[in-house]
Order: sequence, then structure tokens, then C-alpha cells
Amino acid sequence: MMTYDRFLSRSAGLMQESAIRKMGTVLAQKRDVISFAPGYPAPETFPWHELEEVTRELLTGGDGSVLQYGPTRGYRPLLDAVAGIMAQRGAPTAPERLLVTTGSQQGLDLVARVLADPGDVILVELPTYTGAITAFRNVQAEMIGVPQEEDGISLEALDAVHATLVGQGRRVRFLYLVPNFQNPTGLLIGLAKRRLLLEWAARRDVLIVEDDPYRELFFEDSTTEEEVRPIRADDEDGRVIYLSSFSKTLAPGFRVAWIDAPAALAAKLEMAKQSADLLTGSLDQRIISEACRRGILQRQLPRLRRHYQQKRDVMVEALQARFGSRLSWPPPRGGFFLWATLPEHVDADRLLARAIDHGVIYVAGAAFFVDGSGRNLVRLSFSAPPPEQIREGVNRLGAALAEELEALTSAGAPGSAPPRRAKP
Amino acid sequence: MMTYDRFLSRSAGLMQESAIRKMGTVLAQKRDVISFAPGYPAPETFPWHELEEVTRELLTGGDGSVLQYGPTRGYRPLLDAVAGIMAQRGAPTAPERLLVTTGSQQGLDLVARVLADPGDVILVELPTYTGAITAFRNVQAEMIGVPQEEDGISLEALDAVHATLVGQGRRVRFLYLVPNFQNPTGLLIGLAKRRLLLEWAARRDVLIVEDDPYRELFFEDSTTEEEVRPIRADDEDGRVIYLSSFSKTLAPGFRVAWIDAPAALAAKLEMAKQSADLLTGSLDQRIISEACRRGILQRQLPRLRRHYQQKRDVMVEALQARFGSRLSWPPPRGGFFLWATLPEHVDADRLLARAIDHGVIYVAGAAFFVDGSGRNLVRLSFSAPPPEQIREGVNRLGAALAEELEALTSAGAPGSAPPRRAKP
Repeated sequence: MMTYDRFLSRSAGLMQESAIRKMGTVLAQKRDVISFAPGYPAPETFPWHELEEVTRELLTGGDGSVLQYGPTRGYRPLLDAVAGIMAQRGAPTAPERLLVTTGSQQGLDLVARVLADPGDVILVELPTYTGAITAFRNVQAEMIGVPQEEDGISLEALDAVHATLVGQGRRVRFLYLVPNFQNPTGLLIGLAKRRLLLEWAARRDVLIVEDDPYRELFFEDSTTEEEVRPIRADDEDGRVIYLSSFSKTLAPGFRVAWIDAPAALAAKLEMAKQSADLLTGSLDQRIISEACRRGILQRQLPRLRRHYQQKRDVMVEALQARFGSRLSWPPPRGGFFLWATLPEHVDADRLLARAIDHGVIYVAGAAFFVDGSGRNLVRLSFSAPPPEQIREGVNRLGAALAEELEALTSAGAPGSAPPRRAKP
Repeated sequence: MMTYDRFLSRSAGLMQESAIRKMGTVLAQKRDVISFAPGYPAPETFPWHELEEVTRELLTGGDGSVLQYGPTRGYRPLLDAVAGIMAQRGAPTAPERLLVTTGSQQGLDLVARVLADPGDVILVELPTYTGAITAFRNVQAEMIGVPQEEDGISLEALDAVHATLVGQGRRVRFLYLVPNFQNPTGLLIGLAKRRLLLEWAARRDVLIVEDDPYRELFFEDSTTEEEVRPIRADDEDGRVIYLSSFSKTLAPGFRVAWIDAPAALAAKLEMAKQSADLLTGSLDQRIISEACRRGILQRQLPRLRRHYQQKRDVMVEALQARFGSRLSWPPPRGGFFLWATLPEHVDADRLLARAIDHGVIYVAGAAFFVDGSGRNLVRLSFSAPPPEQIREGVNRLGAALAEELEALTSAGAPGSAPPRRAKP
């Protein structure tokens, strides 16, 4: 039988299956599993009826270009709609700065390809989004992590890490940030810190890649719209490349997202996209464009905020009831995720095997750390399952953890469970 | 104002706008231009009514996964449908060998990323598809061209080029071929040569990337289905990575294509796709899957063959009437393109400026050559314009050429027009 290792590129040799996507495979193979793993939006929130109406009109309207090839930049009325959204977010823009992408995952891939050579350094948050890790790894960039505080990435640590790298003669290409309801921590970068990050980037001549898929999903009980103001909104130099998406506000199956970047970079990103997939789906772009024009998107937003806030409440209450103080987490003020710390000696990967047996899955925290840490953290996504499943999933998780703690106790693991149980 | 050159990757530094996509920009800016440039399928052939019916049922059927994230490999029933198509083509396959891609352009990009490192050699036909050139250039591979004969790539030249490269210590990763109605030449690789290519690849331990978007569009007046048998169908070793697409048979706006590859490579290609765009559009995949299941695709094929054969006839007749022997071309036996040789001293790029003035565009041949040759060649696509536009476009092209020949004559260019006109 033929083998292929000798044909693989260095990049292919380094490729790993995404931890989140792997959970998708588990899900597909096993019935009755409750999934807190992938950050799927809730399909019952999609505006099905209105989307069907739009699509019917598009496919019966006699406009041949609806299913034809089209410009790589994107469908022009969609670019205009995106410009409108950017203005609402405090960041007015122009079509020559915009590029439609096939999901923000493509945006990350294009940014990496246009900005990073093998061996270049990309600064990321500790922890950070796995999809970004994969995209950056595939161009053979090295990611260096910077710890987060309650109001996001630590500026002190950031500058220290940068200074060390520059001292080593390393080339730092950009800083990657998810400012709003970060994936996986759910944290927000504070407004003051956003401005300081811009100053820092200018001082150190670094670009900022701001990935902002969750900003519309702020929970009104704890977050105001002012608090999710993009870093890009105050970028006067052209330091920020901003990514956002319709995946969390309309539906992810369309694969429609965008990049807003300084025009010179947008032109390069467009060329990279030409060779990556020529264009994003034409019908998908038309549907999204119409959904913007007709106000379908705008009407969705308050509903979505309420929907996910309510699910967050259900998960938080269930976790508190089932786990008491054995689990802790920063309160999610928006987005899809609850980032929980397990008892220190519990390995989230080992626990996952038990959790699968009990019929619940999550993403083990280590997947989000570029420095090999995060063994006792889990990302629990509350976005997709209905409330009763969230409660049942938390119960199953509780059973799995109890079993794991039991096993650790009887194995007499150092720092094992009982003394921690006795803690307040 | 901030500049960005210092932030660009080496790959981004090398990126160029595609010649074909550039024509799209010309088209968007100028009214009343007849386009022989991009290989767009004819939108009047799309099965609009049936696609609308399918889509309506999908969006009203209560299945939330229609607009949700899904597996990177592709929607399973679509993979099964593709396996059915592969079997029809004489190349039975299995789901673990298949990957749905966001158009075949993504397939080319993924193949390049998984198989080629900067400086590696990829062998291509002279001329070859520009989209492949761009994808291969973006991984900084070096493309070496091999001339074509009437029955496709020259085996002798291929082996000689390979021997030279190996002698220079170069690493040759794969041979890229478009076997059926090649883009841009319209040529078919002969059946005997297809088998010899497999033997050659085994002998030289090279992979073959077979890109086959046009095979269903064989013109029944001059080509049989047996003649478009994929090289992949006779590949017993696992040497061939096969790409094909629904863009030319259903519609390109869906961006649904596939790769069939040895399972070990398919797994790597899937990982590369995870970081490239996570998945191909869910709704698009569902629509295509249903179009296969309901026989919509099968019913399309004979219609499409007739449609494009007829347009080919219109273009050939118009060219013969307008140009006589000043233009020559291999007779297109399928596909979208007519590959015409201009009088030797005419530069297709210079002529293009005149053609645009006259309201017609094409792609100048040099874009398809990796060795800088092909100055007096043009690719004329007859697929999209209706017959009366094809005739009018050919007239405009005739006027542009007459003007250019006139200019060359009065400039007294060496080897200028009049003596050639006297030729038989």
C-alpha cells in the first residue's frame, strides 16, 4: 500500500484536527449526547420564514447573477450593508476597505497568509480561539500567549513579552484579540484598555487583528452597547484589521462574514481570497444582503440577546445548584460561552472521557492555550441546547465529575479531592 | 499615512490580481461590453424552478441543521451523491476519500498547501489554468511548464523536464493536469496517453492532480463519454488526486465542488479545510445534494451538452466568416473555451486595449503560461453570451484586429501584417 508522508508539506505535517471539530465527530457517532462543545447558535432563533421568503424571491426574480460567479470582494449591496453595520458600531468605513469572507475562519486564514511568514510571531490571548490557533499554525507562525485579567489582556505582560521577543530578534506581526465575550473566556476588554492597546500598538509598530463575532450578543442585564465598542472605532492610524460575521446573528450555514482593513491590506486580502475560493457563495451573499436591507437582521438582535441571556441564566443556576463552589467562572455578560475552572487536580481531558460516557460533551480548556497550560478548564457553550437539556447536561457533568473525583481519591492522587471538598 | 509593505508576508508580496478576475472589473465598469473573458456558465441553463422548489422545502422543513455549522468533510448525503457520480465516471470511491470544497478553487488551494513547500516544483501544462497558477504561486511553489500536443501534454517533454529537475536536486511534488477540454486550450488528453501518464507517475514517484470541471460537457458531435474517462479511473496505486465541481453543471454561485483522494491525503486536506473555512455553505450543500437525489443534475447534462455545442458552433462560424485564416484554433470538442492563435506579430495584451474600446473582452493568453510565452494567443469563452452576442462580439474583435494590423503596418513593424495576409 502506498504511503504519503514523503509528499506532505511541512505545514501539513504540523496539522492537527481541531478539538472542537473532533467533538462534532463524537456527536455524530453517539445518540442522546448533550453538547456544550461547539459554539453553535440556536437554530430555533433563525428567521426561517423571512429567509425562505427572501430566497424564493431571489430564485424566481429572473436575475441570473444570483447563482453566477461574482466579484471576489463581495456583492456590492452586501458591502454597502456591511458599511452600514460598521457605522452603527462607531466605525464608519468604505467599500475599498471591505472584503466578504467565507466565514470569519476564512478571514483568519487570509490575514495569516497575508501577514505572516513561517517563524514570525503572532501575539495571542491566553487562552484564545482555537480556530485562530489553527489558522496561524498553518502558516507556521509561532504564537506567543499573553495572560488575561478581568478586563482582558494584561498590558504589562503584553509589553514585557513583546520586549523579550524583540530582544531575541523575533519579528512580531500582529496581536490577535477577541474583544467582546471572548472565545473561550467570555471576557470583555475594558474600554480604557482598548484605547491603551491602540497606543501600545502604535508605540511598538504592531498591527491589531480584532475578531468580533459576538458583539451584538451583549446581555442587557450586565452590559451596555457602549461597552462593546470595537477597538477599530478609535483607530485613527490604520492599525486595526477588524473581522466580524453574520454566523451568530443570522445563521452560520451561509458562511458570510467580513473583514474591514486599511485599503492597501484589503487589496492584498482580496488577492489571497481569489486563490483561496474565488468568491463567497453568491446566493448566500444575496440572502444576507436582503436580510440587512429588509431589517430582518435588526429585528433579530434584541431577540437573540434575550434568548442567550436566558440560556446563560439556566446554565449558571444549574451549575450553582449541582457544583456549588467546586466550579468557578467569570460571569458571562454576552456571547455563547461559560469558562469554568475545575478543581485544580482534575484534568479536563480525562474528565471528558467520563463525560462522554454520561452523555455530555464540552471542549477541554487546553485546546485554547498556546503554552500547554489550562488542563483544569472547560468551555461550556450554552447557546444551542434548549433549557431542559442544559439542566440535564449539567447533571450529567456533575455525575462525571463526582466519578472522577472518586477515582482520584481512591487512587490517592496528590492533592486529591477530599481536602478540596472540605473547602468553603 | 501609514504604509504596510513591512507587514506583508513573502507570499503576499508575490500576489498578483488574476487576469480573468481583472476582466470582471472591466466588465463591471463599462456598459455594453460583450465578454468572452471569464468562463461563466449560461444562467439561462440553470434549473431555476427546480432549485427554488428544493430550497423552499429545505427552509420550511423544520430541520435546523440546514442553516447550521456542519462537518468539515461535507454533508454526508452529498458525499454519498458524489460517490455515485464518481462511480458513473468509472472511478468508484468511498466517503473517507472524499472532501467537499468551496469550489474547485479551494480544492487547488488545499492541495497546494498540503503538498507543496516554498521552492518545491509543480509540473503544469503549457498553457494551464490561471486559478491553479495563482494557488500554486501563493504557496511559493515553482511551476515548470510542459508543452502540449494534439492529444495533450507531451510525455517526452514531461520526462525530460522531470529528469532535468531531479538532476538539479529539485523536489517535484506533483503534475497538475486538466484532462478534459482543458482550460484554456479545450484539448483532451488521449486515452492511451492517460494510461501512460499513470505509468510515468509511478515510475517517477510523482502524484497527479487531475482537475476535471468540464467532463460532463462533451459535445456529442465529436466526443464520446468513453473519451472523457478520468485518469483517476485507472489509478490502482493511489497516485491521483481528483477534483471536480458542480459549478459548470448546476451553478457556480453555490460554490460546491469536491476532491477525491487517497484516504490519508483526504484526511490532511480536511484538516487544511478546517482552518481555511470550517465548512462549505450548509444550505448550498443541501441544495446540491437534493438536486442529485431528485435527478435534477442528470436531466441537466444532455441539455447543457447541446447548449454549449450550439454556442461553440456559433462562435466557430462567426470567426471563420470574420477572420478567415488569420485566426486558427484547435476545434473545441467540449467545455467553454476556444483557444485562438493570432497572427504571430500581434500582441494579445495590446489588442485587448483596442478590443475594450470596441466593446469586447477576452483573456490574453500569456496569463496561462508559466514561462512567459503565449503573447499572440487569446482565450475566447463562448459559454455565457447568447448567440447574437457571440456574433456581434466576434465582429467587434474583427474590427479591433483590423485596427491593430493597420497600426502595425503603418508603424512598419518587422514581420508586419501584409505579407502574412497573403499566406494561404
